[in-house]
Amino acid sequence: MNAQRFTQGTRSLILQAAFEIVCVYGFAGVTLGHLARKVGMSKSGLFAHFKSIEQVHLALIAYAGEVFRSDVILPALESDAGLPRLEATMSKWLEWTARPGTFGGSPLIAGFFEFDDREGAVRDALLEQEVAWRDHLRQLVVETIETGAFRQDLNSEQFVSELSGICYSFHVSARFLRSPESQAAALLAVDGLLNRAKSGTPSMPPFPSASEG
Amino acid sequence: MNAQRFTQGTRSLILQAAFEIVCVYGFAGVTLGHLARKVGMSKSGLFAHFKSIEQVHLALIAYAGEVFRSDVILPALESDAGLPRLEATMSKWLEWTARPGTFGGSPLIAGFFEFDDREGAVRDALLEQEVAWRDHLRQLVVETIETGAFRQDLNSEQFVSELSGICYSFHVSARFLRSPESQAAALLAVDGLLNRAKSGTPSMPPFPSASEG
Repeated sequence: MNAQRFTQGTRSLILQAAFEIVCVYGFAGVTLGHLARKVGMSKSGLFAHFKSIEQVHLALIAYAGEVFRSDVILPALESDAGLPRLEATMSKWLEWTARPGTFGGSPLIAGFFEFDDREGAVRDALLEQEVAWRDHLRQLVVETIETGAFRQDLNSEQFVSELSGICYSFHVSARFLRSPESQAAALLAVDGLLNRAKSGTPSMPPFPSASEG
Repeated sequence: MNAQRFTQGTRSLILQAAFEIVCVYGFAGVTLGHLARKVGMSKSGLFAHFKSIEQVHLALIAYAGEVFRSDVILPALESDAGLPRLEATMSKWLEWTARPGTFGGSPLIAGFFEFDDREGAVRDALLEQEVAWRDHLRQLVVETIETGAFRQDLNSEQFVSELSGICYSFHVSARFLRSPESQAAALLAVDGLLNRAKSGTPSMPPFPSASEG
């Protein structure tokens, strides 16, 4: 029993180290050599827990998804269904994005750019997480439409696509450009998106004749 | 003279190979070993052209910036100043994003996620390119305000931030999710952004009382 608990503890330790590496260097940085040095084990010691580096990457994606679920998705479920729950989710998502030492943006956003033009099990696992996350967001939007807070003709797919863009832009602005205005800009964009979705607003603002001159 | 031309040709060849690698594997994939195999040279042969892998990365960023400039920025300058030029730039940018074998999105978008939490000359070079590109976009927005096509009180910084988000979202949707709806969603989001910026539209849609119920 103790041996097994030790094994599970070691596995956790390896995943935590892998998580720290991937946050800074991406999946390409999570190599057996780098990982072995970081946890202070031999490569063959690592092999007792993971049969290949791909197995580490896959376990890492599942692990990051769990962290995202417990930090973003679950706490927001405590808010009332409809607009409060959607707003709580968006707010937790932006918080997560700005927090150092996370993938940021969405469970594994840096991986989307790393694996966009590559095939394989790692890409498939990332895709599965992102599809599930977008389905969850879309469901929250549909519930908000059902409560009457959002327009009945709102395109929930488009809402999620534009919301994702705001979050990616916030990621780049906060973490890469390190702009002090990043949070204010993201909140302004989110407010605009919410206001345009609210019932009573026209689907599209009228084209002003002034713009033709 | 011939020797020098050969040297320059070889340097181009190395950069082109590095460009092909970075598009798929990111900067982490552009190692001396990978590059030497791809161009069929020894590592010491590479050293005759680049003193370190960091020199390759920096040359690659400059090269990608030049390709972006000649494919996106310059052709759009042929359109009239103001809205036509801004629209031409946005359209070329979206085309570039969807094209396989480019970094996509912005000169070096994948690098923003790779180098967000790392310091050094590569990050600095990426940052310089992105700041220059955003300055260029902001200048196009200011010119559009000056022609009267956009509202006088439009926040050009916010416009560029939201436009960048649309482009990142398109990148993920087209290249990672591979959604057949990605282009239509991006165009719809761009139309919305442009329409909200046009003169005669209110800065913020009114809050409908219906949404409070």
